[in-house]
Amino acid sequence: MTSSISEQLQNLGISKHRPSGRENDQMREVKITRNFTMHAEGSVLVEFGNTKVLCTATVERGVPRFLRGSGQGWVTAEYGMLPRATTSRTGREAARGKQSGRTVEIQRLIGRSLRAALNLKKMGENTITIDCDVLQADGGTRTASITGAFVALQDAINVLKKDKHGAMKGDPVVQAIAAVSVGIYDGEAVLDLDYAEDSKAETDMNVVMTSKGGFIEVQGTAEGAPYSQEELNAMLDLARKGISELVEAQKIALAE
Amino acid sequence: MTSSISEQLQNLGISKHRPSGRENDQMREVKITRNFTMHAEGSVLVEFGNTKVLCTATVERGVPRFLRGSGQGWVTAEYGMLPRATTSRTGREAARGKQSGRTVEIQRLIGRSLRAALNLKKMGENTITIDCDVLQADGGTRTASITGAFVALQDAINVLKKDKHGAMKGDPVVQAIAAVSVGIYDGEAVLDLDYAEDSKAETDMNVVMTSKGGFIEVQGTAEGAPYSQEELNAMLDLARKGISELVEAQKIALAE
Amino acid sequence: MTSSISEQLQNLGISKHRPSGRENDQMREVKITRNFTMHAEGSVLVEFGNTKVLCTATVERGVPRFLRGSGQGWVTAEYGMLPRATTSRTGREAARGKQSGRTVEIQRLIGRSLRAALNLKKMGENTITIDCDVLQADGGTRTASITGAFVALQDAINVLKKDKHGAMKGDPVVQAIAAVSVGIYDGEAVLDLDYAEDSKAETDMNVVMTSKGGFIEVQGTAEGAPYSQEELNAMLDLARKGISELVEAQKIALAE
Amino acid sequence: MTSSISEQLQNLGISKHRPSGRENDQMREVKITRNFTMHAEGSVLVEFGNTKVLCTATVERGVPRFLRGSGQGWVTAEYGMLPRATTSRTGREAARGKQSGRTVEIQRLIGRSLRAALNLKKMGENTITIDCDVLQADGGTRTASITGAFVALQDAINVLKKDKHGAMKGDPVVQAIAAVSVGIYDGEAVLDLDYAEDSKAETDMNVVMTSKGGFIEVQGTAEGAPYSQEELNAMLDLARKGISELVEAQKIALAE
Amino acid sequence: MTSSISEQLQNLGISKHRPSGRENDQMREVKITRNFTMHAEGSVLVEFGNTKVLCTATVERGVPRFLRGSGQGWVTAEYGMLPRATTSRTGREAARGKQSGRTVEIQRLIGRSLRAALNLKKMGENTITIDCDVLQADGGTRTASITGAFVALQDAINVLKKDKHGAMKGDPVVQAIAAVSVGIYDGEAVLDLDYAEDSKAETDMNVVMTSKGGFIEVQGTAEGAPYSQEELNAMLDLARKGISELVEAQKIALAE
Amino acid sequence: MTSSISEQLQNLGISKHRPSGRENDQMREVKITRNFTMHAEGSVLVEFGNTKVLCTATVERGVPRFLRGSGQGWVTAEYGMLPRATTSRTGREAARGKQSGRTVEIQRLIGRSLRAALNLKKMGENTITIDCDVLQADGGTRTASITGAFVALQDAINVLKKDKHGAMKGDPVVQAIAAVSVGIYDGEAVLDLDYAEDSKAETDMNVVMTSKGGFIEVQGTAEGAPYSQEELNAMLDLARKGISELVEAQKIALAE
Repeated sequence: MTSSISEQLQNLGISKHRPSGRENDQMREVKITRNFTMHAEGSVLVEFGNTKVLCTATVERGVPRFLRGSGQGWVTAEYGMLPRATTSRTGREAARGKQSGRTVEIQRLIGRSLRAALNLKKMGENTITIDCDVLQADGGTRTASITGAFVALQDAINVLKKDKHGAMKGDPVVQAIAAVSVGIYDGEAVLDLDYAEDSKAETDMNVVMTSKGGFIEVQGTAEGAPYSQEELNAMLDLARKGISELVEAQKIALAE
Repeated sequence: MTSSISEQLQNLGISKHRPSGRENDQMREVKITRNFTMHAEGSVLVEFGNTKVLCTATVERGVPRFLRGSGQGWVTAEYGMLPRATTSRTGREAARGKQSGRTVEIQRLIGRSLRAALNLKKMGENTITIDCDVLQADGGTRTASITGAFVALQDAINVLKKDKHGAMKGDPVVQAIAAVSVGIYDGEAVLDLDYAEDSKAETDMNVVMTSKGGFIEVQGTAEGAPYSQEELNAMLDLARKGISELVEAQKIALAE
Repeated sequence: MTSSISEQLQNLGISKHRPSGRENDQMREVKITRNFTMHAEGSVLVEFGNTKVLCTATVERGVPRFLRGSGQGWVTAEYGMLPRATTSRTGREAARGKQSGRTVEIQRLIGRSLRAALNLKKMGENTITIDCDVLQADGGTRTASITGAFVALQDAINVLKKDKHGAMKGDPVVQAIAAVSVGIYDGEAVLDLDYAEDSKAETDMNVVMTSKGGFIEVQGTAEGAPYSQEELNAMLDLARKGISELVEAQKIALAE
Repeated sequence: MTSSISEQLQNLGISKHRPSGRENDQMREVKITRNFTMHAEGSVLVEFGNTKVLCTATVERGVPRFLRGSGQGWVTAEYGMLPRATTSRTGREAARGKQSGRTVEIQRLIGRSLRAALNLKKMGENTITIDCDVLQADGGTRTASITGAFVALQDAINVLKKDKHGAMKGDPVVQAIAAVSVGIYDGEAVLDLDYAEDSKAETDMNVVMTSKGGFIEVQGTAEGAPYSQEELNAMLDLARKGISELVEAQKIALAE
Repeated sequence: MTSSISEQLQNLGISKHRPSGRENDQMREVKITRNFTMHAEGSVLVEFGNTKVLCTATVERGVPRFLRGSGQGWVTAEYGMLPRATTSRTGREAARGKQSGRTVEIQRLIGRSLRAALNLKKMGENTITIDCDVLQADGGTRTASITGAFVALQDAINVLKKDKHGAMKGDPVVQAIAAVSVGIYDGEAVLDLDYAEDSKAETDMNVVMTSKGGFIEVQGTAEGAPYSQEELNAMLDLARKGISELVEAQKIALAE
Repeated sequence: MTSSISEQLQNLGISKHRPSGRENDQMREVKITRNFTMHAEGSVLVEFGNTKVLCTATVERGVPRFLRGSGQGWVTAEYGMLPRATTSRTGREAARGKQSGRTVEIQRLIGRSLRAALNLKKMGENTITIDCDVLQADGGTRTASITGAFVALQDAINVLKKDKHGAMKGDPVVQAIAAVSVGIYDGEAVLDLDYAEDSKAETDMNVVMTSKGGFIEVQGTAEGAPYSQEELNAMLDLARKGISELVEAQKIALAE
């Protein structure tokens, strides 16, 4: 008796369910390339499949006004997409004279997440600015950004540690952080959605976690029907799996 | 044998734990006043304790360009705070020529949440604009805004229904929605944080739910330490309780 | 012999002349509610009939650059309208990134008028910022703003007087000020125009006066035909009457 | 017996009272030069003493959206100052990306005043844009602007009249208008204040009138003490005298 | 035997080749009027035929941040066109809230060119701001601006030299500079293009030179076909001739 | 007898003259990588040594308003630098809400140059937008941009040619163009300056040429002393050599 096409595909390890053909709990291939450009204190190209983001970390003396004299450091982030990172051209924000609401939302998330990785009090009055610029987009740019930015941040912290005038008070890195998207696609929880999946998902959730499994940020939005507690839990389970793989990839990259 | 002050307070029904003296699962007093101003199709003053937000709903013919000819409607939201809604004056965004990142984030959340309450295909090519303007702020302005805005939206939908030229195709309201904040304060999950609690909470989470208990949006941010799955669940349980009270308050207001 | 409807109306004290049915020299009902919101040093809801404006006064240490070191204080004003204060929705200025010419004109008038109430040299190097935000508009928002703002200003001055570090040099309030609109409607001078009257008036004049009857500002614009010296005088007579009633209402409110 | 210096000055026709040495009711020398530049339909250099303003009128087909299809025309105005028209350099508004409140106020006044000179219904669907650019400032730039702009407007109307496609319905010019400043200086009413007088005047009033003596706009501001009805009347009397001289100068210029 | 019209025109000294009737190497009439307005330290009206630009130079104490403490001065330039300097009205940049790319390009060129005329180290920590405002445009506004601005700059330097507090260290003027446009029109190199010529030229080149014949800036753009080295040289030869005439005109103006 | 270090270096083919150790007429290594990103119709990474620019070409139907109905196409360009493309971080233009003067100047140059490569009349009413985003900067970003952009443009034209609805009328590419910088460094003409050379050069010149040796654009600026005709010619000779190498590299890349 012959098996169905979907059974055959499944035997071949190809999911019939996701457009990408991945298993529900399967990440895209992740690559983390350090020192991608030459000038920044940290410069990381992070790739989640076809999504490619250049994350740079810049160290500057001094802190924003509200922290002056506190002895404490600061981390902030900016996010951008090259106009043709996307399938159709997105107008350049510098030309329009305004960052979009989406950009603002994402860069606030990145900055908040990275600050959670550090004990800012140990940083001295230094500011690290993270720039995440999307060279090519295929879903998950904000989670790739956070994951890559942590590596760039670690490199920048290392530069600062070696700097006599850095005024660091011990190692400010408390924990690694990474981020991944999960969602409900066609009724099932799936991990690390690409653009084709994301644009049709019923629920889209971004999860930022520490290497120890604590939540830094959970943002889940029902695009279609509301989601249940069970679905939420299923998504968070997938996120946990993805994060542990990402943290591993970060470690390997930092060890090179 | 004399009881401790905290026991005495607890006997009096006053929690020692929260600055507000409320029980962990206790909402602030909620008031919903319809027809607060005279011109808008829906005009609601919503109060969560000292937080007071004026939510108006405006019906206009036509839809944004990307929906023209689709027969479908649209709901969008804008959010603002009067400069002296806050303890110290916040610069007027109109004068600065720019909405802050926080404002942009909040108004995107409000719009997205309200669209989840409706079947936009039944709305005809009409746009409803929700304006949430904070007259007085004491924490939870975005969750109060969503809760009040749903009532204003319902009033505006009712106006549209009676309009011969409204081109409605049945009742577009699929479900009531409401929103509440929860958090981890001093190690315990608490419901509906006021400003004093919010500014010291370890975790701050905003939850938008339907009247039937489905999640529309969950946004939880660790401000200090990461939070665990158990803490997340404890917060969501409180949110469920709060939402059911808010949905009840909406019903009563709409029945008046 | 039966009297005409207009005679009957006049017998009943209802003018046939004005859309509002008021006598030519009759103000709308004026209400001044202090402490309308909780955070500001002065917070006044002023109502001229259906026109409702929230006026807050904020005290801050320091003065603009051009006054630093002068020992003198400063008063400035900002004005805004909630988008749905008006019969059809007015685009939010913060979203458009620009205050309209009308807004700029009005807030300059409010600031200038309030500074005329004070001896700034007695204020110490403090700045009081007046925010006038229109919750509901029905004509005369700028005159209501000035009238309510004076009460909020007085409350803020009282806060400053009690402040040990306020550096006040005696009472800076020289005189109460109030403002009212007058106009030529259908050939006759009328007092305190509402929107229906204002939009059809041939001449529209805003008058700011002191409690002692001196002019602070007279701004009269012919919308249709030019106006004569006689008409100007008739309007100023009405303004004088209105101002004296408003100053009385301010006194009563401040005495509460 | 010797006379005092002030008596001698008065005998010589030089007022001791005004910094300019002019009599209280004496205008500065007024010059109106038509066709000052070559491209505009109307181009007038107007001089009130050292105040020099270039007023151009541009005719364009079409009207703003709110008038389309009405058959009616429109007149609008813009105002600017060259950066070094003033004693110290004023930052260029184009570089700052924003027109100042003062600029906005003035250009609204100019536009409103000129529209009062016309019956817009006779203009056809044409727009005339008046640009008033101050080349050199010495007080009274807005009144000089209005006075010169009327001449440029008349020239532009004449161009339009000769245009077969202009769609004019008879002569839209109803009446000439002109503007002059008056004030209370050192306790006395004075006409056409220059900068030295204006910056020390107790009251500053701008008056726009028709050639027949009707008021178009009266804007009087107490800079120091409030002003009385008597002072107001004294200022308006001076304004009437000034306006009649300006209307005469306009007639002579237009007759050349 | 009769000569052709073009021969007759040429006998009369009228070129058949250029729309302006000028010889290929003939400048328009150049006028330089100093002290055109009264407030600026240098104020020059420069005319190249119908192109008329008002160049003012403003002296201010202090330098931009990057030069503070260097003992060195700075020169910067801003450029603008009155809306109706052109044949059809150009929108006011202050109203649009943005300088055009063309404006930015031109003012950078003017500033750079003038700085090349000076030894900034001898200027003391003073800033001279050059404003070039085009009253009437007929081609060559940027080259007229540079030529006139040098004269205004020289006047401002002279003011600074006489100022005890000017902190000048000798004469900072190293060399006179002037600018002229050249181009390829209908296959031939021509000098000082007016608008009719410029708009149809195949190549348009702006040349800034010193009085001694050195190049400060060469900017040549092929509008149609590329240009050859021979054409480049022919244009530069014309530029040299024009510049020497302009430098002479500057000298005469400064000697008055 | 021992030779000096500089003689030894010269024997080794290492110039003592340039910081880069290159011969005066030696380009940096040039790499042109097509299809660098996946979405754009043309996507080219161009490298001039350490200067790396991503050039994408986007094809869109339709043309700007001034060309509608003309049957003609349009090419426009935008330029940006990632914040950390430079040795110290450059503020993000999208965040500042404004493109710098330098950016505006460069993108106008790129667009103008590329339009010179095409016969726009053959393009149909299509617009190609070139985005040049600098990933890493080391001098010569604008010349690398133009050189890479031509390749991306050619790829986009090829896409358009294959498009049935492209409405092309034959091949619009008239000639290849490329750009290179030249300058006077330490008294000698040098080719293709890197940042270290550029920042100390006495003269900096950007040259855009066609594959046939015609000039499209010459922009030469004296940063220190003026330059002579001989120096200009020496620079143009070097530019010619560089351009021929670049055109060759373009050909090889396009042949792959």
